[in-house]
Amino acid sequence: MKIPGTKYEPSPLGDNLSSNFGAIKLFYGSSAAELGKEIGDYLGIKPGAYDKNVFSNENIFIRLRESVRGQDVYLVQTMSSPVHDNFMEMLIMIDALKRDSAWRINVVVPYLSYGRSDKKDQPRVPITARLIANMIEAAGADRYITIDLHAGQIQGFFNIPGDALTAFHLLSDYVISKNIPDLTVVSTDLGYAKQARNWGQKLNSPVALVEKRRVDNAERPEVMSIIGSVDGRNVLLVDDEVNTGGSVFNAVKVLRENGARKIYLAFTHGFFTEKTIARFKELELEEIILTNTIIQPEKYRLPNMTVLSVAPLLAEVIKRAHQGRSVGELFDE
Amino acid sequence: MKIPGTKYEPSPLGDNLSSNFGAIKLFYGSSAAELGKEIGDYLGIKPGAYDKNVFSNENIFIRLRESVRGQDVYLVQTMSSPVHDNFMEMLIMIDALKRDSAWRINVVVPYLSYGRSDKKDQPRVPITARLIANMIEAAGADRYITIDLHAGQIQGFFNIPGDALTAFHLLSDYVISKNIPDLTVVSTDLGYAKQARNWGQKLNSPVALVEKRRVDNAERPEVMSIIGSVDGRNVLLVDDEVNTGGSVFNAVKVLRENGARKIYLAFTHGFFTEKTIARFKELELEEIILTNTIIQPEKYRLPNMTVLSVAPLLAEVIKRAHQGRSVGELFDE
Amino acid sequence: MKIPGTKYEPSPLGDNLSSNFGAIKLFYGSSAAELGKEIGDYLGIKPGAYDKNVFSNENIFIRLRESVRGQDVYLVQTMSSPVHDNFMEMLIMIDALKRDSAWRINVVVPYLSYGRSDKKDQPRVPITARLIANMIEAAGADRYITIDLHAGQIQGFFNIPGDALTAFHLLSDYVISKNIPDLTVVSTDLGYAKQARNWGQKLNSPVALVEKRRVDNAERPEVMSIIGSVDGRNVLLVDDEVNTGGSVFNAVKVLRENGARKIYLAFTHGFFTEKTIARFKELELEEIILTNTIIQPEKYRLPNMTVLSVAPLLAEVIKRAHQGRSVGELFDE
Amino acid sequence: MKIPGTKYEPSPLGDNLSSNFGAIKLFYGSSAAELGKEIGDYLGIKPGAYDKNVFSNENIFIRLRESVRGQDVYLVQTMSSPVHDNFMEMLIMIDALKRDSAWRINVVVPYLSYGRSDKKDQPRVPITARLIANMIEAAGADRYITIDLHAGQIQGFFNIPGDALTAFHLLSDYVISKNIPDLTVVSTDLGYAKQARNWGQKLNSPVALVEKRRVDNAERPEVMSIIGSVDGRNVLLVDDEVNTGGSVFNAVKVLRENGARKIYLAFTHGFFTEKTIARFKELELEEIILTNTIIQPEKYRLPNMTVLSVAPLLAEVIKRAHQGRSVGELFDE
Amino acid sequence: MKIPGTKYEPSPLGDNLSSNFGAIKLFYGSSAAELGKEIGDYLGIKPGAYDKNVFSNENIFIRLRESVRGQDVYLVQTMSSPVHDNFMEMLIMIDALKRDSAWRINVVVPYLSYGRSDKKDQPRVPITARLIANMIEAAGADRYITIDLHAGQIQGFFNIPGDALTAFHLLSDYVISKNIPDLTVVSTDLGYAKQARNWGQKLNSPVALVEKRRVDNAERPEVMSIIGSVDGRNVLLVDDEVNTGGSVFNAVKVLRENGARKIYLAFTHGFFTEKTIARFKELELEEIILTNTIIQPEKYRLPNMTVLSVAPLLAEVIKRAHQGRSVGELFDE
Amino acid sequence: MKIPGTKYEPSPLGDNLSSNFGAIKLFYGSSAAELGKEIGDYLGIKPGAYDKNVFSNENIFIRLRESVRGQDVYLVQTMSSPVHDNFMEMLIMIDALKRDSAWRINVVVPYLSYGRSDKKDQPRVPITARLIANMIEAAGADRYITIDLHAGQIQGFFNIPGDALTAFHLLSDYVISKNIPDLTVVSTDLGYAKQARNWGQKLNSPVALVEKRRVDNAERPEVMSIIGSVDGRNVLLVDDEVNTGGSVFNAVKVLRENGARKIYLAFTHGFFTEKTIARFKELELEEIILTNTIIQPEKYRLPNMTVLSVAPLLAEVIKRAHQGRSVGELFDE
Repeated sequence: MKIPGTKYEPSPLGDNLSSNFGAIKLFYGSSAAELGKEIGDYLGIKPGAYDKNVFSNENIFIRLRESVRGQDVYLVQTMSSPVHDNFMEMLIMIDALKRDSAWRINVVVPYLSYGRSDKKDQPRVPITARLIANMIEAAGADRYITIDLHAGQIQGFFNIPGDALTAFHLLSDYVISKNIPDLTVVSTDLGYAKQARNWGQKLNSPVALVEKRRVDNAERPEVMSIIGSVDGRNVLLVDDEVNTGGSVFNAVKVLRENGARKIYLAFTHGFFTEKTIARFKELELEEIILTNTIIQPEKYRLPNMTVLSVAPLLAEVIKRAHQGRSVGELFDE
Repeated sequence: MKIPGTKYEPSPLGDNLSSNFGAIKLFYGSSAAELGKEIGDYLGIKPGAYDKNVFSNENIFIRLRESVRGQDVYLVQTMSSPVHDNFMEMLIMIDALKRDSAWRINVVVPYLSYGRSDKKDQPRVPITARLIANMIEAAGADRYITIDLHAGQIQGFFNIPGDALTAFHLLSDYVISKNIPDLTVVSTDLGYAKQARNWGQKLNSPVALVEKRRVDNAERPEVMSIIGSVDGRNVLLVDDEVNTGGSVFNAVKVLRENGARKIYLAFTHGFFTEKTIARFKELELEEIILTNTIIQPEKYRLPNMTVLSVAPLLAEVIKRAHQGRSVGELFDE
Repeated sequence: MKIPGTKYEPSPLGDNLSSNFGAIKLFYGSSAAELGKEIGDYLGIKPGAYDKNVFSNENIFIRLRESVRGQDVYLVQTMSSPVHDNFMEMLIMIDALKRDSAWRINVVVPYLSYGRSDKKDQPRVPITARLIANMIEAAGADRYITIDLHAGQIQGFFNIPGDALTAFHLLSDYVISKNIPDLTVVSTDLGYAKQARNWGQKLNSPVALVEKRRVDNAERPEVMSIIGSVDGRNVLLVDDEVNTGGSVFNAVKVLRENGARKIYLAFTHGFFTEKTIARFKELELEEIILTNTIIQPEKYRLPNMTVLSVAPLLAEVIKRAHQGRSVGELFDE
Repeated sequence: MKIPGTKYEPSPLGDNLSSNFGAIKLFYGSSAAELGKEIGDYLGIKPGAYDKNVFSNENIFIRLRESVRGQDVYLVQTMSSPVHDNFMEMLIMIDALKRDSAWRINVVVPYLSYGRSDKKDQPRVPITARLIANMIEAAGADRYITIDLHAGQIQGFFNIPGDALTAFHLLSDYVISKNIPDLTVVSTDLGYAKQARNWGQKLNSPVALVEKRRVDNAERPEVMSIIGSVDGRNVLLVDDEVNTGGSVFNAVKVLRENGARKIYLAFTHGFFTEKTIARFKELELEEIILTNTIIQPEKYRLPNMTVLSVAPLLAEVIKRAHQGRSVGELFDE
Repeated sequence: MKIPGTKYEPSPLGDNLSSNFGAIKLFYGSSAAELGKEIGDYLGIKPGAYDKNVFSNENIFIRLRESVRGQDVYLVQTMSSPVHDNFMEMLIMIDALKRDSAWRINVVVPYLSYGRSDKKDQPRVPITARLIANMIEAAGADRYITIDLHAGQIQGFFNIPGDALTAFHLLSDYVISKNIPDLTVVSTDLGYAKQARNWGQKLNSPVALVEKRRVDNAERPEVMSIIGSVDGRNVLLVDDEVNTGGSVFNAVKVLRENGARKIYLAFTHGFFTEKTIARFKELELEEIILTNTIIQPEKYRLPNMTVLSVAPLLAEVIKRAHQGRSVGELFDE
Repeated sequence: MKIPGTKYEPSPLGDNLSSNFGAIKLFYGSSAAELGKEIGDYLGIKPGAYDKNVFSNENIFIRLRESVRGQDVYLVQTMSSPVHDNFMEMLIMIDALKRDSAWRINVVVPYLSYGRSDKKDQPRVPITARLIANMIEAAGADRYITIDLHAGQIQGFFNIPGDALTAFHLLSDYVISKNIPDLTVVSTDLGYAKQARNWGQKLNSPVALVEKRRVDNAERPEVMSIIGSVDGRNVLLVDDEVNTGGSVFNAVKVLRENGARKIYLAFTHGFFTEKTIARFKELELEEIILTNTIIQPEKYRLPNMTVLSVAPLLAEVIKRAHQGRSVGELFDE
């Protein structure tokens, strides 16, 4: 007999009210279609479907096509362009998942933006990375998974637990496989010195650093120099994120002035513009190695670019997070 | 061997510490005895027992007779008279459930009161519906289930997820089954116009609206009129809640002045007083159709009243919420 | 010139935007009319006006008649009968005050109910006093002022600061002024033993205690006895709150069996019923001394009853709280 | 003498440490330059200066040029295009203001977006308006000021106090001043019926409503009709917000089919696109009356458009909020 | 095939992603090694391993050696000396457990310190017990288990659920087994009178109380006396916690002055110092009965001391909490 | 006339209830006596008095001797040894200040400990610096003031505003005044490279870095080297905090191996042990320059040590925070 006021006949219940609470569910947002599909393939599950409309007043509307009640949901969305639209879309999806009574909402944000607004290094500025963390928590996320935060401390901006992964092993394993001789690791930025040392240690190479200094000279307000030596060396320039490529551009110039030979560039997040690509072309680097935490449009893909996928890493971490198994053991830690 | 300092011998444990976390449990409060029992019958489970005392200083004391540790508890309580006593009883039971370490506390409130205090439409007034939502959350509820909120936006007053159900299909299916000819749907209130349209759409009937306007006339401060036409039509008057029946009374008067024939009345929540019943008797309506979100005392039940039970609907939603299955599919959504 | 879209011409501003933030404002709720007026008189300020309606669905509606923007508001409401209506009215008024942007909301609750639900002394019971504190905080109160909590620890249920005052000095000063000879202080309850000692110390009198013990005897499940001696003594029976008067009744009986002479009764909160008054009449106590934290209806006022007003104490504390001056120095502390 | 480790000599302190806490400060964001300046002029204060950069990874960086310690700050930002960038800019500015120890942060958002995502009227959708409110609170705002929320209930999505103003009087006073004969007020949407009644009451005009109904007809899934009569009448079409103008377009069509004469359009928020303007041109309305809660680019300003400024209203409310004076009395309430 | 950027090959997944969420895990901190091991033995599980370093700036560093993702963790730590180091260690472990995504964190604190700072009994003092509860909640604990709180109301300082156990049955069962004739139960403190009555009821013995009173006498500011009679009786002195033993010392003196014979002492928590032990030796008590909620160093163990273990009780409660079974039924409640 | 139940006669009130809300008040804890007095002298105010007891169970008891109602309180406490006792004392004082209704509580923590536990750089470790921030906020602090956080990002661990000051100018101005020729700035740690660059920029000196690398060599697991050149140079070794001095010791050794001449050491926080002092003596540094954020005991003060006081800086910032004036302008920012 149909339940009055509904379209349904109840299913016979049997002896007990068994529950399938806690099944895994994967969703991805507009910014992460390729990545989301690759993760789904790896896990052998079909990502969840939803409708998205953007109204003429730019309001985003989301409607999940399938129920997530009691499910362990993983929502993949990165903060690529347009950053704020993608971020709001992520928050709106979290709200929809929460209000549909998901059991646990895990946001998977391969590239978490605003990492450089992580402290007040001058008066009267915001700490936007903390704001971003607060927003994610306030929207209703229970956990987060991300890759190569600009500063490890950003983990502490969250009160919810998370997995702050690194693509360092992915990138460095690849570099090792190339067997580049006479290699010196160079950081474009003093703030990245410690990670450059980690690169040096893993590659068994010396380290040098590019120093940028503000001087009282109207013509040339900044002076670049090298701490350490690169003369006659092949160089692996390392960083966490490349945007316009200005720092890389200046670093390569001063490296060549100081006698460097072939220059390779490795970094995790590539948020490129036309200008970046123009600079890359001008620089004639030996190889540009990066990951797909941000998907590059076709026009930004250069012949000397190697893009390594973070999907297997994310998928494996999602699987372990879901199963309640160690993620650390993935890295022998 | 007895555990020192207790009355018990430990049970042998075997190889692992298996847990029966998450079993379903049903409780109902003073206001919802009939409804609670009906839901329990539908689900095939026995509602939980508890002791209740009211001391001479009117303080309510609750003691659960059975443990709810790790259980998925559904607490049914409506906000019928005495409203504030029933509400406090609900909050106190939530506190008791929380402190006994229930895994999840779902409050089932068929009639959530204070829906008309949902905005500041004049200065210096409270938004009591938000206060009510805050109280329920602060007491420790994890989810809520309710029927026909006065405004859909009240869902947004909650930060916890919930199921805001409607008795619209229950009521309208019944009306359809009566095959009333020449029917026009009329809302007593302009704020209910959109829902009246939904009635009209489902019943394939035209819609008219009662307009109430304040005028500068000491004799008769309010003037009623009809937007649309009811001349020679049978009328289905619709609303979400009927209290004293003042609006219904005035609407029926103006409908009859405008040539309406038989008048039916359908609404979800009936919070009646002596005066309501007196008016109902005077109005000689064809039929008064409502639900049992508020249980009527015998003396308030009239021969032309049809009360439809929301228990099957609530029970099915409870079952699905417990099992982590879609509620939307009950309504083909 | 009138501001477009309003009824007003702006006032000329002069050089600066001076503000009258932080002025004092007094409101009182339904339960505290007499007390509120007395406090207002003491402070020389007129209590704020508001409209109150109770709709037929028992919903309370409040509308402040005057703005409280930026004011330091003191809201007096006690938890006398009907307790839950008065409590909800208080919360609703707090919400109205908050949404009208009061600067600071201080609730003055001479009698804070549910003090005896302050711990889990058996399994599966709530701690309703904490729930009450949570509700007050969640509604938006910034501070509280109250008198003679059932247990001092209830202060710790609040995270907001407050003044937990005592009527002990008010009551004991009065008793001292009577010069009762051969006086022994007796507590009706072992849980009040420490306060009885304070009475004894201040009155320079010995202390005895009534002990109530559950025994395995179907006829008389409880046995009363006296710890200490009252033979030939006048007795001052002390407690914090008297409801039905059952404990007092039993205590007086056992005191008389043990040779006590005249018996006086002193306590702070009197939440009486018909039964209480009947017992008081039967007991023929020398004098019943209490305060007006709960206003007694005329029919509950007996010839041998002395009611001391807490209004001057509350008013002085309100004044000092408003001015940022010490309250402790009122008591030489 | 200079303070060691600083550039400063301390100022002599004199007898006391007087503080200038609580002075007023006005800032405006990218979306509200015209409005912000107008408000500043009205108040006679110079808006606060700040630097804004947008980096190539689209991250917004804000640096206040002047200290706001202990100030009562009013930040004006509307949610015009690009909506999410403007919203994030507002949140980032709130964070900067908070971390610079502003005493009180009031956000002034003339047009608060996402008002139509205010309830779950179908399963598995978010309530984005509540999310927006949560974000504003989590960022650190203490109060909000806004105009014509899509639903009054959105006030209840905020736990912080606020002033939800209306441009109704501004718009209707203007319409009254035009003395349009034989006027009927028409709402494009049944959800706006109550506000249409308010228009009718103030203008002393009858009301009619456009009804949109979904039917099972593949050709024409929606059918428009008029509830009430407009034959031979001049019509004032009213709404809260116009975007693509689709509803207006359909309404005008059905109004003309039903014999309407001149048609005026009045609404508060105009979030226009090319399409809107094209439709407006095609419709040949008598006059389009709106406010400047969203500033229109030059190309969207039509000869038959009248834009009324909300700046005086906002400025007066800001002044009163700062001074702790009633806002309600602006409207005789 | 190895997952790129990790050390691992993924395990084949099969048909579904089954999860072992919610398994039990036991950890113990520095203060609770003996107790933790005993509990582990009882439950048949091996406590979790972790590294602990204390750096020269006294900062404690914790690193779990095994993953707790999705586990139901029980962390045993008592607040013995050094109290604040042990407390911070507990909070730091909670943070580590939370950030490793434990499913549920239960802190087991046999002796919860600061119980005597549970109210403002004089102006301008803190309520540190509430602070302690706030810290535990803010660190991320989901539940707590503790024994014999100084006041039952401290349960209400927690918003999270917990099990506030008692060692009363453990201690009293032992005393009963000794068959002491002519026994009177005496409390050292009036605040413990009610619990003394419970002792008396269970042991079927009369009760007397030690009263301490401050008097205006420079020589001897405090006067001790006995309420009730102990002449010719054996005495069981009861309390919840013994520190320096000052109260016990004074009580024994006045008991002997009043004719008491053999004196036994029973209490739950022994936080001893050299002075305590010296006093115990001087007092020549018949037997000192306590529990091991605080582990005594060898030098503090006296021949007349009987230490009863709370480990079986805690282990059984942990097991039931994990399994979602009643704890109350352990005590026939 | 005396107020009944108090020791006081009310003061005549006059026309209005003026308030002295918001006056400044200074308190200092056990760890900051010297610093607190110096700050008080600078501000010309007498620090607030309080009683402190430590009971034999190590519980700290605080009682303020003067009321702080409505005051703007600055509480100075550093996290020197014993760290956890000092931290708990600070939290307990915050609780006492809050419960005495202070208007605003500013904690001044010159040395905020646990700065090195600021991220999860390995699995299953806590982020204790965030825990510390949470504790301070949960206790009730409204603002914080601190000096030279180990990482600037720790500011983002707080949601409350604060002033994260630096002693860089204090230290570097002093070094400049010494006119050391041929100076190279060297950081002991790659994580401090950016700050070393700031030193170099201000002193107009080159920069070199000490690199520490882990190698697979059982004998000597770590290898030190210099990036950049120090041959024939005087060296200023810079860091934020020195504890055992191990890093300094190793750095000096490798610097001397690489031809450095005179070596100066500058840092903000000195948390010394016997071992530190022994190493300092062995190293024969030219000068050890530090601040008094941690007060050194007499025995730790060496002839070549220069301690610069942060009291003027803190006092000036307190003054400006109280007055609502810019702190940034102290540094021309």
